[in-house]
Amino acid sequence: MIPYPMAGAYLITDPVNMRYLHRLPMARGAVYLSAQRRVFLSWSRMPAEPPPDRLRLLAIREESLGDTLQALLREDGLTEIRVEPSVPLHLYRQVERIPGIHVRISEDPVSQWREIKDDWEVAQLAEAGRITDDAFAGILPFLRPGVTELEIAAELERSMRLAGCVEFNKTIVAAGAHSAKPHHWPTEYAIRKGDFVTMDYGCTVNGYHSDLTRTVVIGRASTAQKRVYEAVLQAQQAAEEALSAGKTSGEMDALARGIIERAGYPGRFLHNLGHGIGLDIHEGTGLIRGSGTILQAGMVVSVEPGIYLEGEGGVRIEDIAVVEEQGCRVLENAERKLIEV
Amino acid sequence: MIPYPMAGAYLITDPVNMRYLHRLPMARGAVYLSAQRRVFLSWSRMPAEPPPDRLRLLAIREESLGDTLQALLREDGLTEIRVEPSVPLHLYRQVERIPGIHVRISEDPVSQWREIKDDWEVAQLAEAGRITDDAFAGILPFLRPGVTELEIAAELERSMRLAGCVEFNKTIVAAGAHSAKPHHWPTEYAIRKGDFVTMDYGCTVNGYHSDLTRTVVIGRASTAQKRVYEAVLQAQQAAEEALSAGKTSGEMDALARGIIERAGYPGRFLHNLGHGIGLDIHEGTGLIRGSGTILQAGMVVSVEPGIYLEGEGGVRIEDIAVVEEQGCRVLENAERKLIEV
Repeated sequence: MIPYPMAGAYLITDPVNMRYLHRLPMARGAVYLSAQRRVFLSWSRMPAEPPPDRLRLLAIREESLGDTLQALLREDGLTEIRVEPSVPLHLYRQVERIPGIHVRISEDPVSQWREIKDDWEVAQLAEAGRITDDAFAGILPFLRPGVTELEIAAELERSMRLAGCVEFNKTIVAAGAHSAKPHHWPTEYAIRKGDFVTMDYGCTVNGYHSDLTRTVVIGRASTAQKRVYEAVLQAQQAAEEALSAGKTSGEMDALARGIIERAGYPGRFLHNLGHGIGLDIHEGTGLIRGSGTILQAGMVVSVEPGIYLEGEGGVRIEDIAVVEEQGCRVLENAERKLIEV
Repeated sequence: MIPYPMAGAYLITDPVNMRYLHRLPMARGAVYLSAQRRVFLSWSRMPAEPPPDRLRLLAIREESLGDTLQALLREDGLTEIRVEPSVPLHLYRQVERIPGIHVRISEDPVSQWREIKDDWEVAQLAEAGRITDDAFAGILPFLRPGVTELEIAAELERSMRLAGCVEFNKTIVAAGAHSAKPHHWPTEYAIRKGDFVTMDYGCTVNGYHSDLTRTVVIGRASTAQKRVYEAVLQAQQAAEEALSAGKTSGEMDALARGIIERAGYPGRFLHNLGHGIGLDIHEGTGLIRGSGTILQAGMVVSVEPGIYLEGEGGVRIEDIAVVEEQGCRVLENAERKLIEV
C-alpha cells in the first residue's frame, strides 16, 4: 500500500513517479494525491486500469485537467495544490488558472516513498536479478579467445530477451586493458588468453532494474590477477555482510575501500561503493564516500567495489541487495568465485 | 545547416528537439535560438561539443540559465523569448524572472525543421535501414517450425546489436493467427508449417529510426496466402512508385487502400498507410486516410499497407522512403517477393 499524503494535495507528473504509483508500462496522464484520495487522471487513448489498492482511474481529456482538479480540490475542501518542479508548463498553466486555488512548487512525496521498497517491488527486483544471474551462467560456455566484446554483450542481452525482458541497462563488456576503465562500451575487440573480462549488465521487470557485474579470466589467472580479484571479492563480501539498517552510507563505502587499500591498491577504487536502484537505475540513497545518510530497511543498493590498474586491467564485482533491519538480502547470486574459462 | 529563426528568440528544452540541434547522444541543457546565434547552454557534468556548424557550446550551471539568457537577449537587442508548451516549470521560472523580458508560450520552430530531412539525416536513416535489411537476410536460415516468436525477436535484435545498434523499436513478431493483429508482441508460440510470420522491427543510428516489416510463409504458401500477399505487395509497390512531393498524404493512402479493396479485401486494411519517421519513430507528416497535407521533398515516411484476416492471419510489407521532388528514394530494400522458408 502506498501512503496517503499527510495533508494537502499534490499533482504528480514525473513519468517515473507516476509509474511507481500506477504500475502501468505506458500511460499518459497525471496523478492527484490527497489525504482523501489517489486518482490517476488518464488521457491515454485507451486508459488502462491501475491496481485498485493504488489508484482510482478517471479518464479525462488533457485539456480538462484544470476543471477536473478544481472539482477534486473542492470535494477535498482544499485551497492549495503542490506540483513538482519539473511539471510541464502547459499542465502547470491549467492548474494555475483554477480560481481560488494557490499552487505551490514543492518536492513531491513520491521520491521519498520510492526509497523504501515494499514486498512487491522487492519481488520484481529479485526476478530481474534472477534473469540476470541466469544470463551469466549462460554466457560462460560462450567465452573463448576470439569472441568480441560486442558478441558477448549481444549474447547477454539475447538471453535476457528470451526470458521476456525488453529493456536493458547499457551493457558494459570490458576485456583486457579495457577492463581498467569502469565504463567501457563493447567494441570489436576479440578477447585473448589472460584477459580479464568484466561484464556489467541488467534488465528490468515491470520497470524495476537489476544490475550485476562479474569479472572472469580467459584461461589461467596469473598470481597478480588472483591477488586483485581476491581483494575485490573480500571487499564486496565484507560489505554485504556488514550492510544493515542503521549503518551510514559512508561507513559502508569506507569499509570496502579500507580492505582494498590495505590489500595494496590505494587509489585504485575509482568510484563509490554503490548506488540506490529501483525504477531508475540510479536513484535515492547509495553507498557514497563520506555520506552520513543512515540506511533504512527497504532501501535497495548496489554493492560494487572495483580495482582498476591503468594499462593492465581491472576487476569489479557487483550485486544488488535490499537493506533489512538486521543485515541485508542479496538479490543477485551469480557465481562470485574467480572463474577461469 | 539548420536555419536561424526569422525573428525573435526561442528557448528549446524538448529532449528530441534538442537532439536534432546538438546531435549528441546524451546532454543536459537547453538551446537558445535567435536570428543572430544558436547556443547550446549545457549543464552536463562534462559538456560535449556539438558540431560547430550547428550550435556554439556554452557550459553553464543550471541555476544560472536565467542570467545567461538575460545576457544573450541583451546582446541580441530582444525583449521577448518564446518557450515550448512542454518546458519544465523550474526552467520556465528562471526565464519568467528575467527583468524586462516578456515570455511567450509558442510552438517551437524545430518540429517544423525536423519534418524536412537534410543529407546527413537521410544518411543516418539509410544506414539504420541497411542494418535492418541485413537482419532480415540473416533471420531467414533461422526460421523453421518449432522456433518461437520470442526467439525470432531476440535473433533480429542480436543481429542489429552486433552491427553496433543499442536502441531498438519494440519488435513485433506475429506468427499464424497472431499475424491477423497489426500489433502483436512476441510470445512463446512456436511457429508451424503454413504460418504467416510477420516481423516488424528496426533500430536507430545516431538517434534516427529504421522501421521494416516483412511477412514470410513457413513451408509452401497456399493459394489463398499467395493472393493476400500479392494484394499487399501490389498496394505497397504502387504507393512507392507514386510517392512524390506535391501529392497529398490522403491520396497516397487512398491509392494503396483502393488496390486492397479491389483485390477483394475491403475493410481488412486496419490502419493508415504510413507515418513520418526520424528521431521519433512516429513524427510529423504521415500517409493518413483523408489527410489533405501536401508532401514535401525531404519528408521521410513509412509505406506499410496490410491485410488482416481475423482468426486466419495477415500480411504487412513496410519500407521507409524519403520523398523527393520527382518520386522518392526507398531506404529499405530487404527482399519483397514472397519468401517460403
